[in-house]
Amino acid sequence: MGELFQARTVWEARELLGEHIKADYPVEQVPLLEAMGRRLAQDLTALDAVPGFTRSTVDGFAVRARDTFGATESLPAYLDVTGEVLMGQDAAAIGEVGVGQAWRMPTGGMLPPGADAVVMVEYTEDLDELTIGVTRPVAPGENIVLAGEDIAAGAGVLSRGHLLRPQDLGLLGAVGVSSVPVLVPPKVGIISTGDELVETWEQPGPGQVRDINSYALYGQAVAAGAQPHIYGIVRDNFNLLLDRLKQALVECDMVLLSGGSSIGTRDVAARALDTLGSPGVLFHGISIKPGKPTVGAVVEGKPVIGLPGHPVSAMVVFDLLVTPLLRHGVYLDDPLEFPVRARLTRNMRSASGREDYLRVRLYQENGELVADPVLGKSGLISTMVRATGLARIASEKEGVEAGDYIEVKLF
Amino acid sequence: MGELFQARTVWEARELLGEHIKADYPVEQVPLLEAMGRRLAQDLTALDAVPGFTRSTVDGFAVRARDTFGATESLPAYLDVTGEVLMGQDAAAIGEVGVGQAWRMPTGGMLPPGADAVVMVEYTEDLDELTIGVTRPVAPGENIVLAGEDIAAGAGVLSRGHLLRPQDLGLLGAVGVSSVPVLVPPKVGIISTGDELVETWEQPGPGQVRDINSYALYGQAVAAGAQPHIYGIVRDNFNLLLDRLKQALVECDMVLLSGGSSIGTRDVAARALDTLGSPGVLFHGISIKPGKPTVGAVVEGKPVIGLPGHPVSAMVVFDLLVTPLLRHGVYLDDPLEFPVRARLTRNMRSASGREDYLRVRLYQENGELVADPVLGKSGLISTMVRATGLARIASEKEGVEAGDYIEVKLF
Repeated sequence: MGELFQARTVWEARELLGEHIKADYPVEQVPLLEAMGRRLAQDLTALDAVPGFTRSTVDGFAVRARDTFGATESLPAYLDVTGEVLMGQDAAAIGEVGVGQAWRMPTGGMLPPGADAVVMVEYTEDLDELTIGVTRPVAPGENIVLAGEDIAAGAGVLSRGHLLRPQDLGLLGAVGVSSVPVLVPPKVGIISTGDELVETWEQPGPGQVRDINSYALYGQAVAAGAQPHIYGIVRDNFNLLLDRLKQALVECDMVLLSGGSSIGTRDVAARALDTLGSPGVLFHGISIKPGKPTVGAVVEGKPVIGLPGHPVSAMVVFDLLVTPLLRHGVYLDDPLEFPVRARLTRNMRSASGREDYLRVRLYQENGELVADPVLGKSGLISTMVRATGLARIASEKEGVEAGDYIEVKLF
Repeated sequence: MGELFQARTVWEARELLGEHIKADYPVEQVPLLEAMGRRLAQDLTALDAVPGFTRSTVDGFAVRARDTFGATESLPAYLDVTGEVLMGQDAAAIGEVGVGQAWRMPTGGMLPPGADAVVMVEYTEDLDELTIGVTRPVAPGENIVLAGEDIAAGAGVLSRGHLLRPQDLGLLGAVGVSSVPVLVPPKVGIISTGDELVETWEQPGPGQVRDINSYALYGQAVAAGAQPHIYGIVRDNFNLLLDRLKQALVECDMVLLSGGSSIGTRDVAARALDTLGSPGVLFHGISIKPGKPTVGAVVEGKPVIGLPGHPVSAMVVFDLLVTPLLRHGVYLDDPLEFPVRARLTRNMRSASGREDYLRVRLYQENGELVADPVLGKSGLISTMVRATGLARIASEKEGVEAGDYIEVKLF
């Protein structure tokens, strides 16, 4: 058996694919409101400072802090109210806060020249229309946000490849980016093979089943931010399969083939994958359960993955080998890939040298999360539907016991 | 101060809103491929069993299990190979596996009548073209999936309100649902108020800042599966605000107003919210930090939330009061709302009787997740951008110490 036929660990499989993949997607400009969930195509820099001026963070009075030093409730500092700043107003155009003076300030208003702090209204008393008593001192810089304290002018704000979240949209709005350069989402071709498959809208006869994988993988691709395209069901025939793979490879950035659970049909698929171009098939099999019969290929920089036929296996392999690529363009060491810790409800065996992935149902018990394995063969899609997450059992373990903590990724 | 002006806990605020909300969204039919992330509008039942026939889960030979009992490597059970099932073939149309007979089976093939188990090819030896030796016995039912074992005919498969995930699409494909009844996503109107605000595409003058909240809240609404609509910036004027609120309330299922950080503008907003209709404002203020100055109202069954003006506060309150409603239509007790446990890197003070929400940056250290607080005022959107999650500190705590575990929601 050649090196090609050694089962690889998930990390080895990622390295092999990663070495040969060229994920250079084209760039497009989209309006800020359509940029949610998209990947940034270039580093972005703030042209302006945010805020552009020093602002008050409270309702109160702009003062020279020194004028309040030593103020107490019994011995307030008396200041003359000589001005008022309104929201949105250019305070510098009105004048300056002089020694012994105070200006009324709204939260968010611009700090006038001369002032270096704001006294909260709660720590002042009105003596008359034009005089207040300050009952607690403020330090210079207190209750203000400095110009550029949120974002400095010229600062890098977001990097190329960053996946845009709601707060990133807010930030881009703040620095005046109303059209965003983003990467065109990768196109993913999805092919199902199998002589037993019929379409969802067909009535399966005896021996036939409806295609499940095309829909599940389509959903996973959408969730990962890609543009999936379904190429339908192909019979287990080398030439038909090769033709469909070639078409998908021309039209897409990545191609997924699923099906071929039997040895004979797996061989047909593997041969077709290896005929497509260079470097071709990089590995046959990964040392995980479920998901072992996975074939990984790269053709002219595009990944082509032969996923197992069983729906659970196909989805697990998609999560491990396809989702990271679609989301980041590369395989990163993501500390948040399995971010949830939960206590297992029962003993589960696992072979050493193989990573096991359990479908689990999570719930709270005695103030902590517990993970109850959803048992059942990997051909049963209903087990994935009953599960709320996927748990990983490291390959060095020979099993996990009830009460052990395991790492879970939520669906 | 009336009951209305008591700050509420998050849970009380949810209960008050929940009591008065009518979330009856219209139903539409969408093709299965467009149903990802949508909410199911009715309970769905499987018409057909999946699989519709008993299938082999391995490559091997369909047998009567009894014929293999006692077989060993040194004393194999000899069986006559009298047939072969091909993928997708109706095995019942070919004949029956008789006593002492075996039929070749591919993984996924239909089990022929007469047989009740499949022997894996690994545990057989070819004696000649028409005879095999079975070297290990199988039990009845071994290496097969029974008809209906994945999904029984007539079984309920998914419930009304269920948020469709990739595996659910696969399941619906399996049971022949190619058009899915889903709820129309709720329409969310977003209004920003403030005399200091300018649009993203405008150059702010002294005292002015660009609108941040409209974009951040829009992104959050998209992430929660809603259809947001931006109603732009409204000046701090009672009549202007009331008009815009009324328009949004007619056109949307929920209205969000953000801004008004100063006491004066907050009062204008609260008065406008209370003028819209019945029952009107239900609470002023929630006992959390950041996010306290939140006003909750319901008007004719539609929620209208006055969010704080500071971007961090507005986003936190959206996560707590708006996201659950958009996602589920009601406030559920969700054990997975803050599913990640991480160890805090430093001491953080917190007032008892108030829930604190910390922006945190998560990373792995010594094999576990640690959460490093991103410090900074709640007016700074950049602190949300640097954070990877939001941590909750329960209201009964007076602080958390470095090394304590905290609960985190990932962005």
